Amino acid sequence: MRVFRLILAYDGTDFSGWQVQPGRRTVQGMINQALAGVLGTEVRAQGAGRTDAGVHARGQVASFQADTRLPAESLVPLLARKLPADVRVHAAVEMPAGFHARHSATGRRYAYRLLVADDLLGSRYAWKPLRPAPADALEGSARALEGDHDFSAFRGAGSSPGPGQCRVMRAGWSRWEGGLEFSIVADHFLYRMVRTIVGTSLDLANEPDPGAAMARVLATRDRRAAGPTVPPQGLCLEQVFYPPQGTV
Amino acid sequence: MRVFRLILAYDGTDFSGWQVQPGRRTVQGMINQALAGVLGTEVRAQGAGRTDAGVHARGQVASFQADTRLPAESLVPLLARKLPADVRVHAAVEMPAGFHARHSATGRRYAYRLLVADDLLGSRYAWKPLRPAPADALEGSARALEGDHDFSAFRGAGSSPGPGQCRVMRAGWSRWEGGLEFSIVADHFLYRMVRTIVGTSLDLANEPDPGAAMARVLATRDRRAAGPTVPPQGLCLEQVFYPPQGTV
Repeated sequence: MRVFRLILAYDGTDFSGWQVQPGRRTVQGMINQALAGVLGTEVRAQGAGRTDAGVHARGQVASFQADTRLPAESLVPLLARKLPADVRVHAAVEMPAGFHARHSATGRRYAYRLLVADDLLGSRYAWKPLRPAPADALEGSARALEGDHDFSAFRGAGSSPGPGQCRVMRAGWSRWEGGLEFSIVADHFLYRMVRTIVGTSLDLANEPDPGAAMARVLATRDRRAAGPTVPPQGLCLEQVFYPPQGTV
Repeated sequence: MRVFRLILAYDGTDFSGWQVQPGRRTVQGMINQALAGVLGTEVRAQGAGRTDAGVHARGQVASFQADTRLPAESLVPLLARKLPADVRVHAAVEMPAGFHARHSATGRRYAYRLLVADDLLGSRYAWKPLRPAPADALEGSARALEGDHDFSAFRGAGSSPGPGQCRVMRAGWSRWEGGLEFSIVADHFLYRMVRTIVGTSLDLANEPDPGAAMARVLATRDRRAAGPTVPPQGLCLEQVFYPPQGTV
């Protein structure tokens, strides 16, 4: 069996998320179906990030095993003919045996975009909060997230329990043309963690010391201490990181 | 009869353009239907710009006459309940008798966005040309468009004939976060004029003097001298201008 890695983008608006669910339109389902059409055999693609319904991706990574003689590069145009307009495969490469899009990944970067103005054309890929928050207050609370912490306070309800430890390599806010963007890199993420961090950051923006307030929420490990989970359309899986080739 | 003005935005992707066509999903059709639902009587809204299939709007203006006692402001929330997610009415005001969204308008601003990178999430509201063009060459050709000219060379095939004279108050290129944006303000526009100007600008970007080349195309008044019409998804009707209130 050969192992392949795909890099793909999707507009999450009309998908019930990444993961296959019976009777639902999912990205993984579309990819599996397109691969079956190209390879003539059933294939199970594994994604690096199991994005939720409505969440987008610019740099999702999927891996799969297949017995085929097709050169990896040929998968890009072949899959393009089978996939709908809201999913696009940007690259396909062969990987060493043992590579797995999720298990081999060492980091993921997500971005969440906030809108300043009520802009219909912006609201497909960003979300407008009821009250705008000052950028410096948001940046202050982001500082408290970096490092090794138990992020259970930001784990969405309905997820399977388990260890809440994550390593956040970088978290911060910057400007995009429609407003502010939160960018976070971590080794892995808990269920709905980014969207709950953004909701909490907005809630804490009026505290005298947003960084200290965020650290207090984090320390509780209690979901009830955190703010609301913001809507999915502002979130995008931007990039997945792997060890240098050959060390997998 | 009272006269009303609406300011509205729409995502043109799933519309067959502004203008009502039997059996097609059009913005004007949606607005007429929503107004009929709110006012209980048939209404014909007139748009300032008859945008083509796939073209977006941030600041389309529509006017209509109606016998109603509703305050104008109440139309915004009432229409919101009747309209689909891809059309939004931002404002509704009462106007003096004689106001007409198209006939009273003194100018329109359109923007066309080019994408630099192959970005699925950018490609709903922008278009990626096969070859990128240098910004200074594009800006050079835009200069030749300003002023009073006969723009027949840029009039799309299949349009009704008529005078080709337009007054372009401003035309120029700037950067947006995904690439370059063409912005043009004119008293009115010919059929597909903006998209054909953009296609021609890209074609002429490698000429030694793109401004002189654009002036030569303009002077021919011949569609065959101009470049291709670029796809609709990059185009957006940004704003419509009217004389100061009371002078209509």
